[in-house]
Amino acid sequence: MSGMFITFEGPDGCGKSTITSLVYENIKDKYDVIKTREPGGTEISEKIRELILDVNNSLITDRTEALLYAAARAQHVEEKIIPALEEEKIVLCERFVLSSIAYQGYGRGLGEKDIKMINDFATGNIKPDITFLFDTKEQVSVNRKLKAGGDRLENSGEDFHKKVNEAYKELSKRDDYYIIDATKSIEEVLQSCLNVLEVKLGGIK
Amino acid sequence: MSGMFITFEGPDGCGKSTITSLVYENIKDKYDVIKTREPGGTEISEKIRELILDVNNSLITDRTEALLYAAARAQHVEEKIIPALEEEKIVLCERFVLSSIAYQGYGRGLGEKDIKMINDFATGNIKPDITFLFDTKEQVSVNRKLKAGGDRLENSGEDFHKKVNEAYKELSKRDDYYIIDATKSIEEVLQSCLNVLEVKLGGIK
Repeated sequence: MSGMFITFEGPDGCGKSTITSLVYENIKDKYDVIKTREPGGTEISEKIRELILDVNNSLITDRTEALLYAAARAQHVEEKIIPALEEEKIVLCERFVLSSIAYQGYGRGLGEKDIKMINDFATGNIKPDITFLFDTKEQVSVNRKLKAGGDRLENSGEDFHKKVNEAYKELSKRDDYYIIDATKSIEEVLQSCLNVLEVKLGGIK
Repeated sequence: MSGMFITFEGPDGCGKSTITSLVYENIKDKYDVIKTREPGGTEISEKIRELILDVNNSLITDRTEALLYAAARAQHVEEKIIPALEEEKIVLCERFVLSSIAYQGYGRGLGEKDIKMINDFATGNIKPDITFLFDTKEQVSVNRKLKAGGDRLENSGEDFHKKVNEAYKELSKRDDYYIIDATKSIEEVLQSCLNVLEVKLGGIK
């Protein structure tokens, strides 16, 4: 596979979605690029996503939740990501395995090791070439209130979201990702991402 | 947990369902017993089951399928099986991890090791106390025709079902299960199961 697989990770409200779209707009004329997101990205994955996030499914256990995310990801990888990479495309993907490590591994307390294991199975061990991890420096989400009309995950309580934020803080200390300071302006954040891509892809700007 | 967890395994059409019900009827006056089945057994698991078996979801990949079965099982174990065992009940369960080993591990070719791994995570490593494996001696299912109106699994083609049957043949050679000759009469098969339970539970008859 000679495409490039680029993921955008970070807590809710960190600006991943906006930046993914802006990066897409900035490189689409020069490269064959697709933009996708998790959970979802294919029809089957969207059906699994609905099941996970439906507030009526309040009895879903933590392990079931983790396996459903992995199932949605397996479908997304095999049906959409791998075929695009095989066609030498650049794949921009909002959320991937790191989100499961933060939310299910740390937030739900299932542990990083087991979440990695089921996701290695789900993805057939495919890894991103580049992961941008948006560091909010705890300025976002930490004191988030319960959203009226939020989904099952959003309604999982303050303690869960606190653990997720602590997870992202820990993950930001690792050398495995490009840490992006998400407290800066959108233009600066975008520029940071494009600078990395310029080095990796060449000739974006 | 001081209950007893008993599973009934074997290929489609081997008589598991009939015998599970008859065992239930035979012991229910003497023991606190519940009867359940996979995939399904809880509301959430049934929703996942629908997703797996829906013929419209023909694009579901093998890994997605395996993870969805594991997700349904995780829910079933935590919501229904473990609470029953904690209440010292006997749990009779039609199909469990062995079915995933036969259908996804062998039938889909994902391998026994990976299927065991994701199911160890799903079940939190709980194992049946007794597994009855119904050996059809290849007299059932091998030449099964495509059923009109069959579900997505039933419609998976002759080659898939042949591999599943070969898997059961192999599994029947192991010492881990009580192998039941399913080619005998219903009364004889039932008696074989009750004889094992008599030894394990005492005073059934």
